[in-house]
Amino acid sequence: MKTVCCSILGFGAIGQGVAQALLMKKEYLKSIGLEVKVVAVVDSKGATVNPQGVDLADCLSRKKKNGTVALENITGVEMIRSVNHELVIETTPTDIKTGGPGLQNMFAAFETGKDVITSNKGPLTLKYRELLETAKAAGSKFRFEATVGGSMPIINLANEVLAGNRIISIKGILNGTCNYILTRMLEERASYTDILAESLELGIAETDPTYDVEGIDTACKLVILANAIFGLDVTYKDVEVTGITKITPEALEMAYERGHVIKLIGEVSREKIQVAPRLVPIKHPLAVGGTLNVASVYTELAGEITVTGKGAGPIETASAILSDLISIYGKN
Amino acid sequence: MKTVCCSILGFGAIGQGVAQALLMKKEYLKSIGLEVKVVAVVDSKGATVNPQGVDLADCLSRKKKNGTVALENITGVEMIRSVNHELVIETTPTDIKTGGPGLQNMFAAFETGKDVITSNKGPLTLKYRELLETAKAAGSKFRFEATVGGSMPIINLANEVLAGNRIISIKGILNGTCNYILTRMLEERASYTDILAESLELGIAETDPTYDVEGIDTACKLVILANAIFGLDVTYKDVEVTGITKITPEALEMAYERGHVIKLIGEVSREKIQVAPRLVPIKHPLAVGGTLNVASVYTELAGEITVTGKGAGPIETASAILSDLISIYGKN
Repeated sequence: MKTVCCSILGFGAIGQGVAQALLMKKEYLKSIGLEVKVVAVVDSKGATVNPQGVDLADCLSRKKKNGTVALENITGVEMIRSVNHELVIETTPTDIKTGGPGLQNMFAAFETGKDVITSNKGPLTLKYRELLETAKAAGSKFRFEATVGGSMPIINLANEVLAGNRIISIKGILNGTCNYILTRMLEERASYTDILAESLELGIAETDPTYDVEGIDTACKLVILANAIFGLDVTYKDVEVTGITKITPEALEMAYERGHVIKLIGEVSREKIQVAPRLVPIKHPLAVGGTLNVASVYTELAGEITVTGKGAGPIETASAILSDLISIYGKN
Repeated sequence: MKTVCCSILGFGAIGQGVAQALLMKKEYLKSIGLEVKVVAVVDSKGATVNPQGVDLADCLSRKKKNGTVALENITGVEMIRSVNHELVIETTPTDIKTGGPGLQNMFAAFETGKDVITSNKGPLTLKYRELLETAKAAGSKFRFEATVGGSMPIINLANEVLAGNRIISIKGILNGTCNYILTRMLEERASYTDILAESLELGIAETDPTYDVEGIDTACKLVILANAIFGLDVTYKDVEVTGITKITPEALEMAYERGHVIKLIGEVSREKIQVAPRLVPIKHPLAVGGTLNVASVYTELAGEITVTGKGAGPIETASAILSDLISIYGKN
């Protein structure tokens, strides 16, 4: 049995999802020879630390009751530097302007020789190359399947399962909110504004939907794919971005009559990184509806491989984090 | 640089695809530290053997010209026992009644401590457990991504990328010929017999299409998934099988009017292994057309993950074999 001592940084929906997944999967993890001991949980107000293992169920209930797990007034970076463990699970919110606390947490983790698994797109959009090199120099593992497509396993699919295939390009729907809005606009022949209101009500869109509907979220995910799969060295400013706010129900209907749907497609290759609304033939595997995410990987030998999955949701994202964890520690 | 000495057994479309892929990918393989040296190519008439490495381009041209690569009158088993190498790539044709020469080749490979990568469903449908145990006892690797779904990476997706997810069931279209026939019957409102004739003409269906249209091929693939992913111990007789020969264009049209397509669906879980024509909602990721293969993996945490790809084709199948090769030798 290998014991993996880890911390969870950020205890919003995703951090809590990780805690729940670890509780649900305890026996399964043991069955494959892994015991995951969480020695610290940190949120924006402070931390719970216990080198013998914190009680995750207690953390979840205190978070619900008090809005925080804080028992000690200590930041993520301070905890990383002072508490002995080998893995930092970084789930703080994405900030693509500064990288937010996530960026500092990741550097602190690597500087103290820890591995990092993250769902936080900000640091990877801004400083991928630097993070990767810091991780390499430290001999640390750095995994981030959860940053793109939630439970849809695009990064590990491309890098592990499709090993041996030269990947020519990846095209996909990487934002569930946009997919939901476009799907519903066509179904209801309703305006962008009406369906956006519906999405807000259902909790599918966020209060400030700019990030999603302007294509920014999709662009960040393309930056991560470009760096991690194509080995490029790009940031957000290298992406051409158009969102979905100008799409009309008439355009959707006209496309549909001609056998197409309009989707917000992110495309990345060695030549081009672009987010834009595009026509997709109704029968094409990319033409999935609702809040689903989908990505088609175009390869030299295997042709086109498409993978579809739930793009969001705390448990789905936690599942991607758990897959990364098992892929780092489970095979030893 | 690691040198992998291997043999190719079976030199039909898939074996030749492997040879072509190895020629095309030589530089790429070198770039990831692998040199693949083929020391023997065997077909039904004999073998070409050269411990220093056979000339694959020459094998391909002799096969085309003479219908065989045979320079020596030696069987696969004899070659495996007498020629020093570490990997057998087994691509002889599927025989689900006896396992054919593939079964003997695999046992001979394991008995002499060699690894096996195969595209041959027969031996795995009949004797999976025995093969697996023989491989384990010998310390040999045994990989068979190419047996299910051609380039669609379902086995490695489930076992590697979705590690940590309890897989509840897998449902999919695992036979491209049936998918093509049903897709075209709906598009053309044509009978099964007419479209079968078209498929034969296009080389999509085989001269004896029984194996495909009666659901037998799909059933064999389910047996492999059941054993390899769910850890069951089943054979062909454990599968309930219904084919597509009784489907009418009227049934397809009526389903379509109600928002569904009819597809030959293979489903496997711990409780049930079944092949049958089933209704699939048009917008569901499983509703792909043409000759595509698709599989939806239902997991405890990640929800439903769907993967789509070309189910057949020599180069696509060779790409799955190459992925297996890299996953065995590329990570050392």
